[in-house]
Amino acid sequence: MEDQWLKSLITKTPQEGFELAITLSRKGVRYTQPDPEVLKKLRPEYANDPEKLTAASHVIAVNFQTIAAANNYWK
Amino acid sequence: MEDQWLKSLITKTPQEGFELAITLSRKGVRYTQPDPEVLKKLRPEYANDPEKLTAASHVIAVNFQTIAAANNYWK
Amino acid sequence: MEDQWLKSLITKTPQEGFELAITLSRKGVRYTQPDPEVLKKLRPEYANDPEKLTAASHVIAVNFQTIAAANNYWK
Amino acid sequence: MEDQWLKSLITKTPQEGFELAITLSRKGVRYTQPDPEVLKKLRPEYANDPEKLTAASHVIAVNFQTIAAANNYWK
Amino acid sequence: MEDQWLKSLITKTPQEGFELAITLSRKGVRYTQPDPEVLKKLRPEYANDPEKLTAASHVIAVNFQTIAAANNYWK
Amino acid sequence: MEDQWLKSLITKTPQEGFELAITLSRKGVRYTQPDPEVLKKLRPEYANDPEKLTAASHVIAVNFQTIAAANNYWK
Repeated sequence: MEDQWLKSLITKTPQEGFELAITLSRKGVRYTQPDPEVLKKLRPEYANDPEKLTAASHVIAVNFQTIAAANNYWK
Repeated sequence: MEDQWLKSLITKTPQEGFELAITLSRKGVRYTQPDPEVLKKLRPEYANDPEKLTAASHVIAVNFQTIAAANNYWK
Repeated sequence: MEDQWLKSLITKTPQEGFELAITLSRKGVRYTQPDPEVLKKLRPEYANDPEKLTAASHVIAVNFQTIAAANNYWK
Repeated sequence: MEDQWLKSLITKTPQEGFELAITLSRKGVRYTQPDPEVLKKLRPEYANDPEKLTAASHVIAVNFQTIAAANNYWK
Repeated sequence: MEDQWLKSLITKTPQEGFELAITLSRKGVRYTQPDPEVLKKLRPEYANDPEKLTAASHVIAVNFQTIAAANNYWK
Repeated sequence: MEDQWLKSLITKTPQEGFELAITLSRKGVRYTQPDPEVLKKLRPEYANDPEKLTAASHVIAVNFQTIAAANNYWK
């Protein structure tokens, strides 16, 4: 269904790891709602509601836990 | 009650692991609401609401933690 | 208060582990609302609401993390 | 402020561990609302709402992760 | 911005660890809303709503996971 | 898209680790809503709602888990 988009959890820096966590979080949404037009339409509702923004940050935090562990915390 | 659908948490690639996380997340719903007709009817309500899409992505993130650990982060 | 219902976290297969995660999630509800009549009455409201179904799947995912770790991911 | 109520995370069985997770979850509430009269009054509202029951089960699941790890999963 | 309030995650007992988890949870709120007058005004709304009390207990549970791991579960 | 803002998860003290967890939580919001004017406008709504404050504290707690593990709990 999907092209290859996730080859590895390893990143060079913690910041790239955080950005990969954002990608995973968005992919979790896109697998459920694959239509880019719908997603674009939902965006303003989404990006202007503090509750939804916090919820987005929460999902990123969970994915960042996974990626940080995969990278042995870049130590 | 259910056929065998989960034989292993091991996947060849991180992306297949992510897709297995999606399967687990959906199975968690289906064990609670097994009627496919009901699930189909609920889908539009679900896939057009940013809050619910983020919640779905959150569950996937939790299941992906489990699968990534099982695969030793594909290292 | 309760009979013995949880003897071990060890299961033969990942799928049985997932089903045990469902049991734990339901038990968490039943310890708070032990009346089976009330629970039966709440069920339709519960099983037809995408938000509540996702929340149920989330709790299962958290319990599955515990059970998967207990079983060393069935490796 | 509080008497000693938590001496150890170690339990004899997984089920006692699950019941300790329930105790921790309730204590988390009681530290925020210590008045038993208020808590009793809130209980019916709480125990008859599927969303709140699932949220309670979620907190129990998180505390059970901690207790299960403390007990090395009773292996 | 803040005085030193967190010197160590190590506590003598699990109960002190749980109480430190409560402190961390409250600090997470105070960094976002530092005005004590506002916080005092919000308290009644907060402490009389079962949903919000469960949410508070959830945050405590997450912080307690961290502290329990830091203390090697007081074993 | 973003300047370098996250060089390391290592901090000198637990408190600096907690403050880094706050930074990560806010960055998770800012990647979704990068417009500082919008964020400023949303702030009062955010900082005066107990539910949203608890949700913010929850995200901080998840990020603090990651940072505390990265620092081996400052032991």
